Amino acid sequence: MAGSPRRATGRRLQLPLLCLLLQGATAILFAVFVRYNRETDAALWHWGNHSNADNEFYFRYPSFQDVHVMVFVGFGFLMAFLQRYGFSSVGFTFLLAAFALQWSTLVQGFFHSMHGGHIHVGVESMINADFCAGAVLISFGAVLGKTGPAQLLLMTLLETVLFGINEFVLLSLLGVKDAGGSMTIHTFGAYFGLVLSRVLYRPQLEKSKHLQGSVYHSDLFAMIGTIFLWIFWPSFNSAPTTLGDGQHRTALNTYYSLTASTLGTFALSALVGEHGRLDMPILEAKFKVQDTCGVHNLHGMPGVLGALLGVLVAGLATHEAYGEGLDSVFPLVAVGQRTATSQAMHQLFGLFVTLTFASVGGGLGGLLLRLPFLGSPPDPQCYEDQVYWEVPGEPEDEAQGPLRAEEPDTRA
Amino acid sequence: MAGSPRRATGRRLQLPLLCLLLQGATAILFAVFVRYNRETDAALWHWGNHSNADNEFYFRYPSFQDVHVMVFVGFGFLMAFLQRYGFSSVGFTFLLAAFALQWSTLVQGFFHSMHGGHIHVGVESMINADFCAGAVLISFGAVLGKTGPAQLLLMTLLETVLFGINEFVLLSLLGVKDAGGSMTIHTFGAYFGLVLSRVLYRPQLEKSKHLQGSVYHSDLFAMIGTIFLWIFWPSFNSAPTTLGDGQHRTALNTYYSLTASTLGTFALSALVGEHGRLDMPILEAKFKVQDTCGVHNLHGMPGVLGALLGVLVAGLATHEAYGEGLDSVFPLVAVGQRTATSQAMHQLFGLFVTLTFASVGGGLGGLLLRLPFLGSPPDPQCYEDQVYWEVPGEPEDEAQGPLRAEEPDTRA
Amino acid sequence: MAGSPRRATGRRLQLPLLCLLLQGATAILFAVFVRYNRETDAALWHWGNHSNADNEFYFRYPSFQDVHVMVFVGFGFLMAFLQRYGFSSVGFTFLLAAFALQWSTLVQGFFHSMHGGHIHVGVESMINADFCAGAVLISFGAVLGKTGPAQLLLMTLLETVLFGINEFVLLSLLGVKDAGGSMTIHTFGAYFGLVLSRVLYRPQLEKSKHLQGSVYHSDLFAMIGTIFLWIFWPSFNSAPTTLGDGQHRTALNTYYSLTASTLGTFALSALVGEHGRLDMPILEAKFKVQDTCGVHNLHGMPGVLGALLGVLVAGLATHEAYGEGLDSVFPLVAVGQRTATSQAMHQLFGLFVTLTFASVGGGLGGLLLRLPFLGSPPDPQCYEDQVYWEVPGEPEDEAQGPLRAEEPDTRA
Repeated sequence: MAGSPRRATGRRLQLPLLCLLLQGATAILFAVFVRYNRETDAALWHWGNHSNADNEFYFRYPSFQDVHVMVFVGFGFLMAFLQRYGFSSVGFTFLLAAFALQWSTLVQGFFHSMHGGHIHVGVESMINADFCAGAVLISFGAVLGKTGPAQLLLMTLLETVLFGINEFVLLSLLGVKDAGGSMTIHTFGAYFGLVLSRVLYRPQLEKSKHLQGSVYHSDLFAMIGTIFLWIFWPSFNSAPTTLGDGQHRTALNTYYSLTASTLGTFALSALVGEHGRLDMPILEAKFKVQDTCGVHNLHGMPGVLGALLGVLVAGLATHEAYGEGLDSVFPLVAVGQRTATSQAMHQLFGLFVTLTFASVGGGLGGLLLRLPFLGSPPDPQCYEDQVYWEVPGEPEDEAQGPLRAEEPDTRA
Repeated sequence: MAGSPRRATGRRLQLPLLCLLLQGATAILFAVFVRYNRETDAALWHWGNHSNADNEFYFRYPSFQDVHVMVFVGFGFLMAFLQRYGFSSVGFTFLLAAFALQWSTLVQGFFHSMHGGHIHVGVESMINADFCAGAVLISFGAVLGKTGPAQLLLMTLLETVLFGINEFVLLSLLGVKDAGGSMTIHTFGAYFGLVLSRVLYRPQLEKSKHLQGSVYHSDLFAMIGTIFLWIFWPSFNSAPTTLGDGQHRTALNTYYSLTASTLGTFALSALVGEHGRLDMPILEAKFKVQDTCGVHNLHGMPGVLGALLGVLVAGLATHEAYGEGLDSVFPLVAVGQRTATSQAMHQLFGLFVTLTFASVGGGLGGLLLRLPFLGSPPDPQCYEDQVYWEVPGEPEDEAQGPLRAEEPDTRA
Repeated sequence: MAGSPRRATGRRLQLPLLCLLLQGATAILFAVFVRYNRETDAALWHWGNHSNADNEFYFRYPSFQDVHVMVFVGFGFLMAFLQRYGFSSVGFTFLLAAFALQWSTLVQGFFHSMHGGHIHVGVESMINADFCAGAVLISFGAVLGKTGPAQLLLMTLLETVLFGINEFVLLSLLGVKDAGGSMTIHTFGAYFGLVLSRVLYRPQLEKSKHLQGSVYHSDLFAMIGTIFLWIFWPSFNSAPTTLGDGQHRTALNTYYSLTASTLGTFALSALVGEHGRLDMPILEAKFKVQDTCGVHNLHGMPGVLGALLGVLVAGLATHEAYGEGLDSVFPLVAVGQRTATSQAMHQLFGLFVTLTFASVGGGLGGLLLRLPFLGSPPDPQCYEDQVYWEVPGEPEDEAQGPLRAEEPDTRA
């Protein structure tokens, strides 16, 4: 299966060594820098008759669990379901997410929540780490099937750092409001993955891709993934908001916005579709991007649209519409430090920054992943579990299925 | 695929126009009538050290999320999974639910929660809207595969209004206790859909139905749907209850009742089944109802049984059994305004009202949906995604599957 | 299908009578012994401005719902998905879980929470009952396909009692800390089921098993099951903990531990796998155990590893590392009643006790289930739904599938 014995030994050692190296480094950094936050630390805080602010963990934990389901089920395995590639889709989802969760805790902690030289973790850092893992899984969806685990781990390492920088620039430096992670999660994750996939473009793959992937079924799975996204979106959007009425409002607005946009999408899709039929993948096959899981449609375009809507909303923000709530939505406008138009410009600039980080980062990532010793799977073995997994019973399995259908041939 | 070019253009414009019209009307009505409730409004309320009553959002939100999962996963796509109809099942579930959520917020708000001419929305209106969407998805399950999106949107429009009226009559006028939505959701949704399906009966469809739908698999999916219903039932039942001990009790009772009824169901099913085997669809094929998803078994019968159980429980309600809790379960009995027997009669009358609304409404809906310009799919295209969706790669897909199995035939 | 008419009548009556008998006995015991706990009882407690301790239901309920999803989706039907055995997998999951939830409420109540002769139920008893049901479903996974419903009900009856005794011995008598139910749930459930499966070993089954079960797909389903376990693990582990900082810490630690162990698992698996490939079922086929669902890999081994880790952690527990938190993690060490080494020895002894209870109990259970009148399915009907279920449309279904593929044969 592998070219030479030496190369096989190389592959044999590469992944375990890389995993152990990354995990070892992460463990050391955790030991040095990471501490429980006040509410989680047994030595600092005790349960009892506290004010509401002290129950933050209990008010936030259900949101965390919802985000966790959404990231892993919605972004992860449902999006990534190819016919003969199930082990890899599911297995690598685990691997990347596990690494992203740890690594982004460090990166985000470095940029956002250093207290006295320490990163304090609690339910909020778990939610934030999940968001970053979500972006990584979106990118994974774009390159699924033609990248090996070592390549994917390096992609995660790079993307997590850039995610942290981009988020820091947008939220802290530019004062941008990123509702629902349109920019930092969806736009960034999608275009990072798509540009990376473009750099890894393989002309020979087009044919095998059509043979291997069950196109009808992967679109169907993308739809099911979308349902999970739809169901957990209100929790997802409201999870990072400050506790209180702002969080209520975000959940409520997301809920009703989703319903309105669903009808709008149907109207638009039926209008532009051929013969008035509804069409899932509208814009593709024009650019040389192999977007295995339709990441562009599911995250890229919606992310950009969401960001542009944010520009519009910021431009129209007034004290009349928001009352004192303006303070929590666009605080810099509320205190008079910025006009609504200036905020809108900042929002637009934030989108530009995100697209730049994603494209340049994805491009660099692609070049990095083309390094020959990283063990990219050869063309005929793309979208195949057998390269990386011991697939049990495969011969018997085939004997029952397609092979059996051709038995008459053999006997004739 | 469509009869004439003109008809094709008609279909092309009908769905987008209908979507835009409905969404436009809903948006205007929202702008005029809908306001945030006190807890959600930034201008009225601020987070801080409030009493428990002020944390209602946080105590209720997890229940909402559970109901949301249950309605969309349990009622929606798992129930509605036919072999070549996946896009439509999932896509139309979205479309109908999205419209039902908005429209029922208006209808329920009109009947129940007008405050100074406004409908106040919050986590409770989200839960209530989800319940109505659940009823619509149950009905959708009965007509799935033989109705087009324009027909389904009109069905939703009608059903949502009738749902609101029926709920208002039962809960507000008759003072009926509708535990778990037995009457307002399950019974109403199931019989509305079944009567509507009866009016749309197509004699030619029987044959193609057996060919198209994988009967074994749709029963299996119904079972999986049932599992989700089972898992989230305690949340579902306790979600609309007043906060406090009543809600605890409802969740707990649902939990243990489900376990007891499961053993009872197995006993009954094994007893009446042929050869002592367990049988899912016991009562069918007698009436000319094409019940695509087994809605009668999953919602109709259980709903009626639940309602009749409610009659029994009401008839036996005493102060001894409930203590002060009688106040929250049957308040009119508690204050002495009604005897237990009278409450039982009201419960029975509530079931009768529900069945009447469902039947007459379903009948009218069926006649409405037979209007020729609504674009009902012709018989041979029922249970087929290709009428409404661009199905990608279908030829390749078939080439790998059944067609390949017959290749020896061609070559012989 | 069945041997003689008399035996058919026997089977016809056996399951319903057993269900009714068990349900009747349970109902009587509930009526005599079970009462609402303080917070759930309408007569004792009213909602209002209480301290946090009084909101325990609301703080715990989301955890309960997460555990409920995890047990039923993660342990239950996803693990138990064989090609022609879907009805039985899903149906029996319901049946066993339903009985286990009731019965374990009684057993656990008897051992743990008798107050004045009564068992007080509330959200905590629901969580604890779910844990026991989880252990039963793990065991079910080991014997799935070769046991009938009457056998499985008796297995549940026995296992639930032993689960309660084992839990009581470990937690109350030995003062063992069982983080994440490593010992009481995973180790106990897995080895009880595996030993029972060993006693029921049928030499003739090996061949048919390979034909019937889609090996690739059941591994894939096990992976999906693992994802659900992974997602809900932080809730699962922290659910039984006392409210407060200990619960936060458990959720947080589980979250980050899972990420680290994922990278470790990949490293180890790639290192020991043939050709450096990743391998799911590493240790099997050596002992004569028919482990239908890979229970040993998914629960047995991880449970034992978790227990051994607990030994290690206990041995290293110091006041310096835990601060006042030591009080909630290892209370007996905290108050100086035990040294850390003694606690570690107790943990190790707890694992030994668990393995003993599981093995002896599983062995006895296996002997019990071999009683001939219990209606064990004959070899050729194992992994077949048709023995227990009316499978609708099976002939049509087959005509479309494998049979059609062989049609050329018939015609030739």
